[in-house]
Amino acid sequence: MSKELKIILIGVGNVGFHLGKELHEVGLEVNQVYSRKITKAKRLSKIIKCEAIKNLEDISKEADIYILAVPDSAIENVAANLSKQIPLSKLVVHTSGATPSTVLKPYFKNYGIFYPLQTFSITRKVNFSNIPICVDSNLKKHRASLEKLGRRISQSVHQINDQERSILHIAAVFVNNFSNNLFTIGEKITSTEKLPFDLLKPLIQETVDKIIVQSPHEMQTGPAKRGDNTTIQLHLKYLKKHFPEFIEVYQTMTQNINSKLSKIILRQKK
Amino acid sequence: MSKELKIILIGVGNVGFHLGKELHEVGLEVNQVYSRKITKAKRLSKIIKCEAIKNLEDISKEADIYILAVPDSAIENVAANLSKQIPLSKLVVHTSGATPSTVLKPYFKNYGIFYPLQTFSITRKVNFSNIPICVDSNLKKHRASLEKLGRRISQSVHQINDQERSILHIAAVFVNNFSNNLFTIGEKITSTEKLPFDLLKPLIQETVDKIIVQSPHEMQTGPAKRGDNTTIQLHLKYLKKHFPEFIEVYQTMTQNINSKLSKIILRQKK
Repeated sequence: MSKELKIILIGVGNVGFHLGKELHEVGLEVNQVYSRKITKAKRLSKIIKCEAIKNLEDISKEADIYILAVPDSAIENVAANLSKQIPLSKLVVHTSGATPSTVLKPYFKNYGIFYPLQTFSITRKVNFSNIPICVDSNLKKHRASLEKLGRRISQSVHQINDQERSILHIAAVFVNNFSNNLFTIGEKITSTEKLPFDLLKPLIQETVDKIIVQSPHEMQTGPAKRGDNTTIQLHLKYLKKHFPEFIEVYQTMTQNINSKLSKIILRQKK
Repeated sequence: MSKELKIILIGVGNVGFHLGKELHEVGLEVNQVYSRKITKAKRLSKIIKCEAIKNLEDISKEADIYILAVPDSAIENVAANLSKQIPLSKLVVHTSGATPSTVLKPYFKNYGIFYPLQTFSITRKVNFSNIPICVDSNLKKHRASLEKLGRRISQSVHQINDQERSILHIAAVFVNNFSNNLFTIGEKITSTEKLPFDLLKPLIQETVDKIIVQSPHEMQTGPAKRGDNTTIQLHLKYLKKHFPEFIEVYQTMTQNINSKLSKIILRQKK
């Protein structure tokens, strides 16, 4: 893959926006960015100084790689439409953790994955250098070239097949989506009770700092872990009165931490 | 509270060990440390150069403050025994988030709380400077002196009453105990599948970095949030086959994030 690698980015949501910016910042050539919503395409194209398009008919046939950074539900449809516009031989990849690469197979001879394993928000700057980039392709030469492309933006590039990537994505849902929801619950409880959520932030930070160096399994503490049913019952009583919407989360997580605390007992006493 | 404040530490578990070390490090005088297990008491007393005792009968009657850093279930019993050894007028506090200060009321005229809102492990060094220290006492003068003591080790000291502290503790269980359990699940899935858990660590770090500056409620992403039932069903299918023990956590958290994804539908299709 030469230095003049030409990239076209299709989709400029949370992933596409940051990926496009980063590819540009490391000196790669993003020729066009596509979005059905031209204002979204222009938000990025202005920053990285390239063409914004909103019709796939306007897409350049000259690029080396077409990156689909669209929602999972749109990948196949966009791929089908794209295949009518560009030569069959072009390399087309998507950036999703959940969707197999083979969804692209009916449409392209050369297809693959370029999946940054991270959570992105438009408004938040990200540092790509340690983000794991999971790459894959049906052809070995493209696996190598995608790996090379990944190394332009990150030190952590991995060849990960469809099955492995889907497993990583499930694990990511637990550690990211679900833990963020627990932080949301913590925020809801404290703010409703007029206590500063900030009081919990050093604890949250330490929770994570710990498991970066030690196994989370070994770091587990709390009433569930030590089977402290007295405290658990006090918590359930409080939740029942003030936050019934969080009781099931409390019970399910408590029992998952300590299977000896049978759910039946947890429910009976609540 | 003078510089010659004499402290006795009762209990040298995760909290007691680190608190004792810190009080010593900032120049306070910890005269004795007590543990039923003398080897545990000695592990700390050697570091902070004080007497280790394993019988409450040996406790000094000369200290200014007695800090009970014992398990919740032991607080009342230890307090009762301690009250037979020291003058009624001594200030006795405990370090628990879950137990009310009033558990000490039957035994002492001056009682209170010195609760560091953090997760501690013996093996892991902690930086107290930003740990919220929640203090309380039945007497205003002791609230002030405990606040002063707290400021010796932390910039974040707060007068928090029993009710508020119990609420903070419940929120802490969600954001610390339960999120750590989600990280444990992520570790279990990846290690079982021979994938490096390290691939998830930048994601976990970013999950937390985000919510230190922005509301977690606004940071929620993922298939549950966007109502992506196709992906959710794929995840449930995988979990059912490989990790049935995590299905309930997945379903409960998914529905808690997005109440439109009715649990009944989640269950029917699994």
